[in-house]
Amino acid sequence: MNEQTSRSPLWFREPIGTGLEILYRCHRLVYSGRSRYQEIAIVDSQVHGRMLFLDGICQSSENDEFIYHEMLVHPTLFSHPAPRSVLVIGGATGASLREIFRHPGIERVVMVDIDGELIEICKRHVPQWHQGNYDDPRLELLVVDGRKYLETSSEIFDCVILDLSDPFESGPALLLFTREFYDLVRAHLGPRGTVAVQAQGISPEEVALHARIANTIGRLFPVVRPYPYTMHCFHRPDAHVMASMDPGWSLEAMIRRVEKTPLPLRYFSLEMARGMFNLPPYLHQAYETFTEILTDDLFFQ
Amino acid sequence: MNEQTSRSPLWFREPIGTGLEILYRCHRLVYSGRSRYQEIAIVDSQVHGRMLFLDGICQSSENDEFIYHEMLVHPTLFSHPAPRSVLVIGGATGASLREIFRHPGIERVVMVDIDGELIEICKRHVPQWHQGNYDDPRLELLVVDGRKYLETSSEIFDCVILDLSDPFESGPALLLFTREFYDLVRAHLGPRGTVAVQAQGISPEEVALHARIANTIGRLFPVVRPYPYTMHCFHRPDAHVMASMDPGWSLEAMIRRVEKTPLPLRYFSLEMARGMFNLPPYLHQAYETFTEILTDDLFFQ
Amino acid sequence: MNEQTSRSPLWFREPIGTGLEILYRCHRLVYSGRSRYQEIAIVDSQVHGRMLFLDGICQSSENDEFIYHEMLVHPTLFSHPAPRSVLVIGGATGASLREIFRHPGIERVVMVDIDGELIEICKRHVPQWHQGNYDDPRLELLVVDGRKYLETSSEIFDCVILDLSDPFESGPALLLFTREFYDLVRAHLGPRGTVAVQAQGISPEEVALHARIANTIGRLFPVVRPYPYTMHCFHRPDAHVMASMDPGWSLEAMIRRVEKTPLPLRYFSLEMARGMFNLPPYLHQAYETFTEILTDDLFFQ
Amino acid sequence: MNEQTSRSPLWFREPIGTGLEILYRCHRLVYSGRSRYQEIAIVDSQVHGRMLFLDGICQSSENDEFIYHEMLVHPTLFSHPAPRSVLVIGGATGASLREIFRHPGIERVVMVDIDGELIEICKRHVPQWHQGNYDDPRLELLVVDGRKYLETSSEIFDCVILDLSDPFESGPALLLFTREFYDLVRAHLGPRGTVAVQAQGISPEEVALHARIANTIGRLFPVVRPYPYTMHCFHRPDAHVMASMDPGWSLEAMIRRVEKTPLPLRYFSLEMARGMFNLPPYLHQAYETFTEILTDDLFFQ
Repeated sequence: MNEQTSRSPLWFREPIGTGLEILYRCHRLVYSGRSRYQEIAIVDSQVHGRMLFLDGICQSSENDEFIYHEMLVHPTLFSHPAPRSVLVIGGATGASLREIFRHPGIERVVMVDIDGELIEICKRHVPQWHQGNYDDPRLELLVVDGRKYLETSSEIFDCVILDLSDPFESGPALLLFTREFYDLVRAHLGPRGTVAVQAQGISPEEVALHARIANTIGRLFPVVRPYPYTMHCFHRPDAHVMASMDPGWSLEAMIRRVEKTPLPLRYFSLEMARGMFNLPPYLHQAYETFTEILTDDLFFQ
Repeated sequence: MNEQTSRSPLWFREPIGTGLEILYRCHRLVYSGRSRYQEIAIVDSQVHGRMLFLDGICQSSENDEFIYHEMLVHPTLFSHPAPRSVLVIGGATGASLREIFRHPGIERVVMVDIDGELIEICKRHVPQWHQGNYDDPRLELLVVDGRKYLETSSEIFDCVILDLSDPFESGPALLLFTREFYDLVRAHLGPRGTVAVQAQGISPEEVALHARIANTIGRLFPVVRPYPYTMHCFHRPDAHVMASMDPGWSLEAMIRRVEKTPLPLRYFSLEMARGMFNLPPYLHQAYETFTEILTDDLFFQ
Repeated sequence: MNEQTSRSPLWFREPIGTGLEILYRCHRLVYSGRSRYQEIAIVDSQVHGRMLFLDGICQSSENDEFIYHEMLVHPTLFSHPAPRSVLVIGGATGASLREIFRHPGIERVVMVDIDGELIEICKRHVPQWHQGNYDDPRLELLVVDGRKYLETSSEIFDCVILDLSDPFESGPALLLFTREFYDLVRAHLGPRGTVAVQAQGISPEEVALHARIANTIGRLFPVVRPYPYTMHCFHRPDAHVMASMDPGWSLEAMIRRVEKTPLPLRYFSLEMARGMFNLPPYLHQAYETFTEILTDDLFFQ
Repeated sequence: MNEQTSRSPLWFREPIGTGLEILYRCHRLVYSGRSRYQEIAIVDSQVHGRMLFLDGICQSSENDEFIYHEMLVHPTLFSHPAPRSVLVIGGATGASLREIFRHPGIERVVMVDIDGELIEICKRHVPQWHQGNYDDPRLELLVVDGRKYLETSSEIFDCVILDLSDPFESGPALLLFTREFYDLVRAHLGPRGTVAVQAQGISPEEVALHARIANTIGRLFPVVRPYPYTMHCFHRPDAHVMASMDPGWSLEAMIRRVEKTPLPLRYFSLEMARGMFNLPPYLHQAYETFTEILTDDLFFQ
């Protein structure tokens, strides 16, 4: 009897919107439960390795989370001349922490996530993601709503990383994608501060939300640069957005910093930095088409 | 966090033929592996409780296996005037043993199953089925091909229970549904011997195989009585067949025995015995339509 | 190129409760749309032939609807000494009409269905079911809520056929399974009147609703007789209920009528009639366990 | 009744390898059949619009095929100083033709596809792809195996476009991904000839085949440049490969040509050209790891 080599007969089902469903063959249900804020599932899948799902939607996979997290953190940290303090909102897996602490100048990181149960579950069940970075003494971890934190704190940061789940109805991240929220973020950034935003899918038939996120940020920051990436476990092309408070931000300056402090990464590199902001015409077109700003009112009307 | 009340996100998929697939939400993968003869999976499902699958096909479920096993064993044992010795071919879950040993006169049971690994797995993982009956000192357990056993043994039994998986291509039970096999069975039965056969689905669009099994047995036994039953976990109507070597077999005599030795069962009873052999016209029609006998040649041509 | 013999790549998905989903390979989407009351889909499936779904739940299939409809109509009509007038509530496919009009003494049938669009769609797309019986001059067809009809009409019938979809939340049939409703039905029956009720699944793990329907009817009618049947396209064992206003109802009398007026049916027959009311112990047990009556209040509390 | 706005209940199922399955809600089965070489299905899906599947695997979708085809054709045509003649192997949808004929200097296109039935079906059912380009008088269309064509023809081309389905067992494209085949392609290219290759998925856990294709081509061509792209309907990141016979090929020269002859495209542009060959470290690593060359022997051993 060979229990190991036999294929598991169990599948995880991920409905995506109303027209798509993805099934993943899984050999282990690592965790399944409901926290105060969301349904949490962690499985070991055949194709993507360990996967984390929140409210049924894939957040990350062991095999390619490095693409998402390297692309979220490094362009924004390298866009700041000398980042020492970073605020992370969301990011319970700890992988954004891992990438932030690769930068040698970091002195202080504040991480704010509303879901303390999720953080504990990630600490225990996805150590591949955080790799012990939750224990870094430079980290202050706060279990509180990100928006509430911004409203009550007066701390100023060099960089802010918005490592959030999708802004869907009834999800905890809905009001972390609006002009009012980005305004609060801006108030916590120094004069050359930068921010990274997980900014949704960009496939041609569903590019509107991404374009509106980019345009909403564009109303508040002098420099806004979206850039594409693809993770297999998201099963679509996505984009992050980097925004800077510094009107003098330049790609050349960012590239020089990458050149000066090369990091041993698997996805982001000097070579990648040089081409990462080059966008196809259909995306430029989308930014001109979907100009309606996302506001708190809009989501609650 | 409430891990228990959360619904499992994992599903078992059972393709049935080329036109149907059934998905079962499962909260535990109890066992998954390949024995020398077949793929074995045991899961805990939301709807049917613990389930056993061989080569991907459901064999039994905790919630309703009593229907299958009571209906397989008791009509055949009550059809014999005084059953003392029983041969079981197949039946690795041990549930047929459990039903046989309810009959007070049983002195000897020989159980023959080709898959010793499967038996060990069932002993360990589905104790609800066997309920300790593998330890009965009247049982002789042989791990050998049922057909080979019949060819080499000369023992005569009162009853034979054919508790087999489906006769599909490349499965271990293919040649245990042919005239040649039933001929071997007959040679091991006494003059009033009876046999029980798991005889497949009887829904109108796929009744041919069942009708041919019944007709094949009908060439060799003077009395052949199919009777329907339905298990939710098979997702279709099925039928077993009872056949007797005794041309004088009568339902009345069988009913009298049930009346005399009532057993505390959940599906088979005196009341059920009275109506169980009444068949709908479409089944009678099928026995007249699908008359081609199943032979070894046929499966190998 | 052989377009006909190629297997269709499209599947219909039927989620059943929260723990089960059935997929049917379909080669044609015959109809799909929303009436005022429900989502309607008609497909041609590989296994079951043409199928009708309401709100995603299978109502009937071409291959085995005869089992459901013969078993719903004939026991109830043969339970009445001489049925001349019949009321059907529901039954939009027209198959219950077809079975009713087989009885030679029928003089008047009133059919009441709330969903006129569904009737038109069935007339057009499932002619195998109604076989022209919508054109019978003895039929009066009313598009109105069945309960409203009973409240306002004063007509008395020999038989009532409740050919309804399942009583789920927000479905149109929810209040057609309560004591208050059955009370209304009773008021429209003559002294020897009989009623047929589609009475849900009876697999051991979900027998409660069926048992409560039977017990609810049992409070109002002197004779209540549930009886099992299985359709492949329902993928579980089910039961109908026959109830009579006549305390002197007897199976023997019913059998004599079947004997006297044999109909050329595929499932119901004299032979079947003789055994159809014999129930397994687990069902008797269920009637003693699940005794809470279904009332309007209950569904709205 | 609103037939239009109701969601279709039918789904197309695409198993991808043994660990993944994608379900697409579809409102129309446009075509389904088997040609001499492959199973063909064309459906109208909710998410991706019209989709073409060969042997169950998605080849293209209406909503984003422009990404695949613009990225396959233009880098290779712009890599040649003045392309006048192009050979296409595969490409039955006609979308590669459409992109080729956008280049003003094109005088002759030979298209070779083994499956004439598929071409006819695409002409009729996916006009959005070919947009009439099958009627261009500069096109010579040959229904023959691409490898046989190369073995027997002596024509020399400026560019070759290998617009093939995946090289899986028993598929028609298996032997169009080997060193022997690429050797034949090279023999049909002029001294500055270029070739475009659909070169499979590049997600980290399945990058081996892509890397081996690139390395196989690298044995035969002095310049080999893979470049990533992502189509939503492929549900993963992919890459094409551009190879040139000209050791003096340079990105700068290619960019100058794009600048000189800008085409009104939706994905490929001057801006894109500048960054398209920048690759992440994990891909560079893969080219060093998976160096075994693909040969005819390998596939047949």
